[in-house]
Formats: sequence, structure tokens, C-alpha cells
Amino acid sequence: MFGFNGNLLRVDLSSNDIRTETVDEKIYRKYLGGRGLALHFLLRELEPKADPLGPENELIFSTSVATGVPLPGFSRYAVVAKSPLTDGFGEAEAGGFWGPELKSAGFDVVIFEGSSEEPVYLWANDGTAELRDASHIWSKTTGDTQAMIREELGDSLIRVASIGQAGEKLVRYACIMNELKFANGRGGLGAVMGSKGLKAVAVRGHRRPDFADADKIRELAKWFADSWQKNPGSLSRSKFGTAEMVLPLNAGGILPTRNFTTGSFEGAEGISGEEMKNTMTTDSEGCFACPIRCKRVVKGREPYVTDPMYGGPEYESVAALGSLCAVGDMSAVAYANQLCNAHGLDTISTGCAVAFAMECFENGVLGADEVDDLDLRFGRAEAMVKLVEMIAGREGLGDILAEGVMRASRKIGGDSERYALHVKGKEIPMHDPRGKKGVALQYALSPSGADHMQAAHDAAFEKSVRGVEPLGILDTSDRMSLGPDKVKLFKQLHLWWGLLDSVCACKFVFVPHACGVFKINHLPEIVNAATGWDTSLLELMTASERSLNQARMFNLREGLKSADDWLPDRLFEPLKSIPREDAKISKDELRSAIRMYYELMNWDGETGRPRASKLYELGLT
Amino acid sequence: MFGFNGNLLRVDLSSNDIRTETVDEKIYRKYLGGRGLALHFLLRELEPKADPLGPENELIFSTSVATGVPLPGFSRYAVVAKSPLTDGFGEAEAGGFWGPELKSAGFDVVIFEGSSEEPVYLWANDGTAELRDASHIWSKTTGDTQAMIREELGDSLIRVASIGQAGEKLVRYACIMNELKFANGRGGLGAVMGSKGLKAVAVRGHRRPDFADADKIRELAKWFADSWQKNPGSLSRSKFGTAEMVLPLNAGGILPTRNFTTGSFEGAEGISGEEMKNTMTTDSEGCFACPIRCKRVVKGREPYVTDPMYGGPEYESVAALGSLCAVGDMSAVAYANQLCNAHGLDTISTGCAVAFAMECFENGVLGADEVDDLDLRFGRAEAMVKLVEMIAGREGLGDILAEGVMRASRKIGGDSERYALHVKGKEIPMHDPRGKKGVALQYALSPSGADHMQAAHDAAFEKSVRGVEPLGILDTSDRMSLGPDKVKLFKQLHLWWGLLDSVCACKFVFVPHACGVFKINHLPEIVNAATGWDTSLLELMTASERSLNQARMFNLREGLKSADDWLPDRLFEPLKSIPREDAKISKDELRSAIRMYYELMNWDGETGRPRASKLYELGLT
Repeated sequence: MFGFNGNLLRVDLSSNDIRTETVDEKIYRKYLGGRGLALHFLLRELEPKADPLGPENELIFSTSVATGVPLPGFSRYAVVAKSPLTDGFGEAEAGGFWGPELKSAGFDVVIFEGSSEEPVYLWANDGTAELRDASHIWSKTTGDTQAMIREELGDSLIRVASIGQAGEKLVRYACIMNELKFANGRGGLGAVMGSKGLKAVAVRGHRRPDFADADKIRELAKWFADSWQKNPGSLSRSKFGTAEMVLPLNAGGILPTRNFTTGSFEGAEGISGEEMKNTMTTDSEGCFACPIRCKRVVKGREPYVTDPMYGGPEYESVAALGSLCAVGDMSAVAYANQLCNAHGLDTISTGCAVAFAMECFENGVLGADEVDDLDLRFGRAEAMVKLVEMIAGREGLGDILAEGVMRASRKIGGDSERYALHVKGKEIPMHDPRGKKGVALQYALSPSGADHMQAAHDAAFEKSVRGVEPLGILDTSDRMSLGPDKVKLFKQLHLWWGLLDSVCACKFVFVPHACGVFKINHLPEIVNAATGWDTSLLELMTASERSLNQARMFNLREGLKSADDWLPDRLFEPLKSIPREDAKISKDELRSAIRMYYELMNWDGETGRPRASKLYELGLT
Repeated sequence: MFGFNGNLLRVDLSSNDIRTETVDEKIYRKYLGGRGLALHFLLRELEPKADPLGPENELIFSTSVATGVPLPGFSRYAVVAKSPLTDGFGEAEAGGFWGPELKSAGFDVVIFEGSSEEPVYLWANDGTAELRDASHIWSKTTGDTQAMIREELGDSLIRVASIGQAGEKLVRYACIMNELKFANGRGGLGAVMGSKGLKAVAVRGHRRPDFADADKIRELAKWFADSWQKNPGSLSRSKFGTAEMVLPLNAGGILPTRNFTTGSFEGAEGISGEEMKNTMTTDSEGCFACPIRCKRVVKGREPYVTDPMYGGPEYESVAALGSLCAVGDMSAVAYANQLCNAHGLDTISTGCAVAFAMECFENGVLGADEVDDLDLRFGRAEAMVKLVEMIAGREGLGDILAEGVMRASRKIGGDSERYALHVKGKEIPMHDPRGKKGVALQYALSPSGADHMQAAHDAAFEKSVRGVEPLGILDTSDRMSLGPDKVKLFKQLHLWWGLLDSVCACKFVFVPHACGVFKINHLPEIVNAATGWDTSLLELMTASERSLNQARMFNLREGLKSADDWLPDRLFEPLKSIPREDAKISKDELRSAIRMYYELMNWDGETGRPRASKLYELGLT
């Protein structure tokens, strides 16, 4: 077989049983990898209503048929489990080098079952795998963990995905870090890993899968190498990283600030991509086979000196730990970001939790005695940094916030629910749907809870549909529309971005309006070059639809309902930082839009349950 | 613009007003051409419940964005109108040279409105168009018509699409012939043309549209030229023509015989492709840019000497005029076929009408005094030939049969309805759904009434899905299944073949199991090479889905109902010529299958009406 190994590694942590299982090529073709392939196993193997933090949960690391193709953007893999944050479908993708290395080590997928009484880590190396004692590295940072594992195995090129203390302590939004800077960030998969006593997954391999058409891949690599340097978006992303978005979003009045009470932050300059570049960036780095190198290497100023090995904050982290908390000091933000990476915390949920606490504090819902003597007013960088540490260690107020804002507000009571911004229990990312309303659909309809990477954002399609025409999108749509035109656009984009989560491709390299270079029609070419198949965008999009239906079915069986496809109340308030009357979302228009999305998906219009005929068509019965 | 002229010619036959209208590129991209583009105009311009034979009907000749690309299979165009046979959507495609010539003459589409008091023909030539008197050619055969028009315009390369006396006399299944042998065969579009006093459409042009990527087209042409001669199916089709199917179908017990009372014909050898080749074929010929040359040139034996210019009978004609009437004399069949081509009769409906009359006669429903002294027993070649002439001229019993079997049986009364094999008023083609059950779905669900070219037939997918995987088809299906697996397969194939009717491509060159050489993924490449677009199989299939929904909406507004998606009673009787218990269709299984098809299309499961959200998604509201 070309493109993949054709097997999975099944690791029972309770019994220390490890075995390799073959997977039929048809399964790969049907699910592709990533989200879709992992859900195939999760739906069959996980008992309904399992405790996400119990041994019965499964934790699945899944590459795709294209992961490791030596082309920009094909570095990624997904981690999937039942999420302790949403009690539904949990997924998070990461780039870097870990995914290609797993495939080179001879495995496409690793499924962890059960839990280990003593801390362990998995060591997968050139077709073999073993569980090793991790007692001595338990409680260590991700940086120390990686160093110790490389040291004890004697190979500095081992790729390590690990948790920090946040995962060990079951912080519900703990993440999994690889290479200290690439995160399977959202949904608390690090907590699932911690609950299993699994500290790390270390991989090393010397044999890439064969690809069916190596010439074609070389040709595409050369084309990309020539093209990206002519593309202004790619050059800018390479120069500034994702934090380049801070100032444009602030200028547009949609930079999430003070826990989404406004979209305009007076301190935006201080946390801009330009500021990061000019005052602290020492280098850039990137993922496997990608020349764009969109990640930053930074060194913060006193008192927030950072270690370059943890990487610089991405836009989401900058806004969550910065403007959302009204913190305008890039060094403090970078330091808090480092704490998150070292302890294994999702920066988005962490920033939201801090901002939530700040708003509770400012409104007297949290009294001074309940906040461990922190000055928790908006804008206090010291308190923000301290609280991040306390969350990772579940200390004081941090222990409450470690549950996520939904559960924390239930504990805190009072008016705090007003300040708990989440969908399905997962905290809201750093994009305000009141200024780009397709994002409302992303947040409400993402199967893993509030997520900003479900589809390209609205501004891209206001003037032109160039680049997305292969998806059948022929009509532009105003960013402020949440009408049928937006739903139709979103549905196609949702399938397309979901496809990228199944083939484990980087969205940036495929987004023409960001740093994208690859065109949509390159994707089937790449999958065919990897596998030798004769697939098409049509077949691939059907696979993506399959995975969205799988995720939907998973959530329904876990008890999530149509009513959970919704936004927090705050996002129905007008956003005053945009001088437009339509900078608000009405519940009626959102309700209609969601219903229409269901119908476009051939799901029941009331319940959002996939119709039996649709499931049959997708081969999911 | 590349690939097309960007305009249509609108001809008001009542007022002699002719004008050219520009058509936006977006319309071409949305509808592609052929069926889809014609329906775009028909749905907007035709008043509901129009008389199909009144001046208010429109008759639309439509090429596509790919018609005329110098590649095999891209010779085709559609003619669309409200059908006088079904009172719903009428369409018929034809190959040859007429379509490319229309585009070279500067027009993509011709819409005829109104009707002319005196017979006329249209002459479109290098960007100009005029209506010319046709009084002197009215009542002439298609052969004489073509000769006289070429003679009077002084150009032997003029391409002529015309009707014969059948169209003039409003035979409800009169066809339109071009080059005397290529037919827009089904649905009575020749009668619509006759009702408008339009004898012919003559076209000549010297300027092909520019194509965006001529190198790519040359490369594909060369590839095809090399490939088809290595493909056994193409070689066989080139050698024997479509009549090669007679013996295999007879061996399988599914050669429609004696008006579908059996699938086994004792005289099959006499009407086989081999017989045609050995005893009467003098040459082969084909369509624009195609090396396969699947059409026959034949010369029959006394008393049925034929003129080679009318071409030899295709499989459908052989079976309809042969086995269906139990006629085993290939010369008689070829002669009857020539009569159909000369007078402009659809051979399928004509053969069905004759077989219907024969069965009525054998069962005493038609008495000797009602059949003009013909010996109308099955197998009587002389009577078959005579009756074809009488239908074309509406003489005696022929006048009744000229209404089609549905209306004829209403006139004849008695038990005759049992013998009237049609769906929606259109006669059944020469494939027995009891031996390949997907054909039942084609017949029942074709928007233009019973049609065998709605999808590839079942046998192709029993053992392998190779070739159709780009459609997302991953599972084989037994030919005798009419279960959900078959519906799912059929739906995808229906969209795919429907797409070929919008891009006006020959199905044969794309069918791997017949004479096909092109792969499915070649189609978007070809459309892109023609137009310079960046389309995909996904976008193209969406355009096809759009056209199927357009056709559905057209039928619903004209009064057709879900109950019209059905088969005649005979096809629910067991087919005894196959020694299998399952060689029968139950009404329950067909009902379930049709309902499932509706649901897969996101149509209402009861009524088959497209859901509002689906229409909106397709841009049809």
C-alpha cells in the first residue's frame, strides 16, 4: 500500500498489552485519517456515556493517508477522545514533526485504552512499541519531559508528545504538546491522557511510507517553493506569524477584549505581531516540509524572560491572554503562553477562564477573599500570569477555573453564568461572531464545541469567491449576513475544512486569503500521489461529510441536543465597537440559520439528527 | 470567454423576430449547458401548463461549455421542450457534427418561440441568422430536406437538423434528425418542432470558440488516440456498434421480446451485431473528433434495400423493431430504422407502438377490421414495416399509434392498457429491469419518462467499482438488488450521467465497462481546459444535481406527481426467461427504493418535492 502503513497500534494501559492490528485499505479510503478515521474506532469501541476521565475512554492519535507526504502542510495528526470539557466529541489537531515521525515509525494510528496505575510513556520505534515507566518524569514540564526521554533513550531526534502537570491534574482543558510548541490544544485531551497515567508518546522512525507518485510530489513541492514567495499573504505570515491579525481585527472593532464586552482594545499595539517582531522575536520555525515557518521564537523582557524553546504565542494565545484580559504587555502574554506550553494548558480556554474570573471580580461576583488576594481587575498582567500557574497546579481559585468556565460558573453561582463564554462547555475562541457572522455558525455547530477553525471566516468571501469555486461556491456573501446565503456558504466551507481535519492538512496552506498557496484542487492530486488512488474532490468531500455525521451521531448518543448548538447570551448583545447597526445577532436569525444548516445536511430540521437515508448513504449504519 | 460564445439566439417564429442575447459567464458555470442550461430558460420563460404542441411551448437547442472541444465525445447538444408525450420535461441529446457547428457559427443556444404560419427553416451562419421559407421542403424526408437546403444555400458542409413528416404531423414521438442518422430521439421534440412550422435548423460556422488550454486538449486527444485501441470494449464497439449487445442480453434472458412478455428471442441471431456486420455493414462512421466510429453504414437485402446515408440501426432500434416485435430479419429492421430516420420517428417508441398493436391484435383487443388488414401477429416483418410507415403518415391504425401507447390504449380501450408499456407516457426502452433492477429506478425516476440512459446499468458494478470510485462509490451491488445499496449507487450514477447531459458529453466514452476510455476525473480537466475555470468534479456534480432538481420542479409544476414515478404493471410480473427466483420486482420494494431516492436527494419522502433548503442551496429559488 502507498501512503500509509495499513495498521494501528492498540495499547491497553490497564493490562500493558500492546498489539498491532491491520486496517483494510477500504477503511482508509472511506475515512482518510485524522478525525474521520479516529471516529470510526471511537464510535465502535467506546461504550455510550463513558466517563471521559475514566479508564473506559479511548484516546486516539490518528494520522492520515497524506500525513508525512513531503509537502508543506502535511505534517499534522489528530487526537480524538470523548472530551471532559464537552462530554461529547473531542478532537484537536497538531502540526510539527510528530505525525510524520509516527508514520515513519511504522504506525498510522495509536489507540490507548484503559489506564495505568503507575505513570508510563509509550515508546514507538521502527515498528516496535513498549510502555516505559514515567514515574520519574511525572509532574515535570513538557520541556523537561522531552529532554529526559530523549536522554534516556539516547536519541535527540525522538519526537515527544506529552502532557504537563495540567494534564496530570485533570484540568479539563489540558492539552497535549509536541516539541513544546505544537499543541493538540483544545477540548481537554491532555486531561484524558493524564487520567490514563500516560505522560508521553515518544516516536522515532527511519522508514517513510512509500508514496505512489514521488515525481508528482516533487513537482508540487517545487511549485510550492516557487509560489509561496510570490504570495503576499504567505510572505506576511512568514514574517509576522499569526499575531499579524491583532491590529487589523482591532481596527475592525472585533478584537475580543475584556471577555467579549468589546472588540476594541486600547492596548492592541502592545500585543501586535509587529510588536512581537520588533521587540522579542529571535527566529522563526515551522513544521515538517514547510518553508513558510509561521511560528515565532521569542525572548520576553524582564520580568517575563522566556525560554525560546517553547515558541512564541499564536494569535489566539495573544488575544486570549492579552486583549481578552485587557493585558497589553506582550512579554507577559508570551510568558503566560510559555506557562501554558510547559504545563500543557490550552491557551484559549485558559485566557477565557482568566477573563471570566476578572469579570466576576470586577462585578463583585467573586470577592477579594475568593481570589487568593490577586488584583483580578482587567488589565493586571501579574494576576493573569499568576492565575495561569494556579490553574495548571489547581491551586485556590485556579482549581475552580480548571473545570472550565461552564462548570466554574456553576460552582461560583450568582451572576457568573453571564460571564462564562462557552459553547457545549468549551470556551469561545478569539473571534467575535457579531462582526463576522459565519463565525456564529462555527461556534454553534462545531461538533467539538466552540471552535474557530471550522471554516474560513467571512471577510474572505465578501468580494470574490475566487479560490473556493471548486467547492461550487459561486456567490459572495456579506460578512454581516447570517441569512440563507451565509448558511449555504458555511456548509460547504465546513465540509472543506472538515476534510482538512481528516486528511490532516494545514488549513493555512490551503486558504487563499491567508497564507495559502495550494489550491483546493491540489488536495485530490496530493492524496492520489500519496496513495495511488483515483479519488476526487467529490469523494473526499463525501468522506468529510461522513466525519461530520459521525461526530454528530457521537454527540447525540452522548446526550448532546440541538439546544446545545447555541451561543452564550453575551454574543446576542450588540457589539458597540463596530459602528454598524447590524453588529448584533438575533436569536431568531441564529435559530433559522441552524435549522437551515440541519436541512442542508439532510438532518432532521428540529433535532439535527442525521436522517437514516443520509447515514446509509455515507455507509454509517 | 473561453469555450463558449456567451450568447443565445432567440427566434420568435410568430413574429419572425430574431435576436442575439448575451448570457453571463456565471450562468454557464452554474448550468454548464445542455439539459441544465435549457431548463434555466424553460423554467423562467414557459408559462405553466402550456400546450406542448401550441405556440407557447419553447423549443431549445443547447450546446455546452465543452461542446466542440476537439476530443472524442464532445460532439453533443440537447434539445429541450415541454414534451407532448409526457406533458412534462422533454429532452433528447444527439451527437454528430451539428452541435460543434452551431458553436462555430457563433451561437451556444437557440430558443424557438411561437409558431410560423408558413413552414420555415432557420439558417445560422457565422454569426448571422435568418428564417427562410420551407414550403417547398415541407413533407420531404430528412434526406431530401438536407439535400435541398445544402443545394439552395450552396454549401455541402452545412449541418442540418430537421424533422420529417412525423414531426409535421405531430406524431407524439417524432424526433429531430441531424445528418440523417443522429437523432434527438425521444419525447416527441420533433412534434414540437412541427407544431411551430419549423422544418429545419441549418448551421454553418468557420470559427470555433477559443479554448483556454489548447495544449492540454491536444495532450488528452493524443492520450485517447493511443488508449482506445488498447481497450477491448472500445475495439468491440468500433467493430460491431451498439448492436453487439443483442446476443449477450439474449443469452442473459433479458432481451426485450414480444412486448416484454419474455427476455429470450429465438430469432436473436438474425438481428445480432455479428449478423449486421457479416451481411450488411459496408462502413462505419462516427461523431466529431471521435476515432471510435461506433455507427454503422448498412445496405439491406431485397426487399429491404436501404440507403447507406441513413445509417444502420443502433441496439435500441434493433431490439424495438426486432425482438420486441419478434422480428428476426435484420434487413427488415434496418429498413424500418431507415423509415424512422427518413420520416423522423423515435425508433424506441415506434417499435413499442408496433409491439403494443401486435399484442392487442394477438389478444383480440384489436380486431382484424381495426388493423387495416395487416397480419399483425408477432414476428410479421411486413406488417411491422408497413405500420411504421402508417405511423409516420398517421394513416389508419397508425394515426392512433402516433399518439403513443398510453393515449392509444385509452382510445382502443378493452384490455389494451395491459400492453401499453410506458412511464409518464413515454415508451419503455429495450432493457428489462427485472434482470438488472437499477434500470427500474432509471425508468421510474427519469424526469423525461422511461429512459435507459439515466445511469450505467447494473452488471457493471457487481464485481468491482473500479472506474467509479471518484464518485465516492466504494461498494459493489448485485444486479438483482433493488435495496438501499442499489438506490445509493443509482443516485450517484444518476447525477454523473445527468452531468454528461449537461456538459453534452457522450456517455460511451466515459463508461469504463462499455467502450469508455476517459476516466471520470478527465471531465473536470476537460471543462477547465475548455473554459479556463478551476472547476472540480464536486462543482460539476452539483450542477448536475441542480439540473435534476430543475427537471423535477418543472414536472411538479406541470402536474406530474410522485405516483407517476412508477412502472407499468407488466414489469411487476416475473420474468421467466431468467432461471432465477428473484427475476421479479415487487411493488413494495420499488416503493421503498423510490422513497429512499427522494430522501437521498433531500426531497420530501412522500411527494418527492425538493425541500426548500435544497432548492436554495442549488440557487434555484
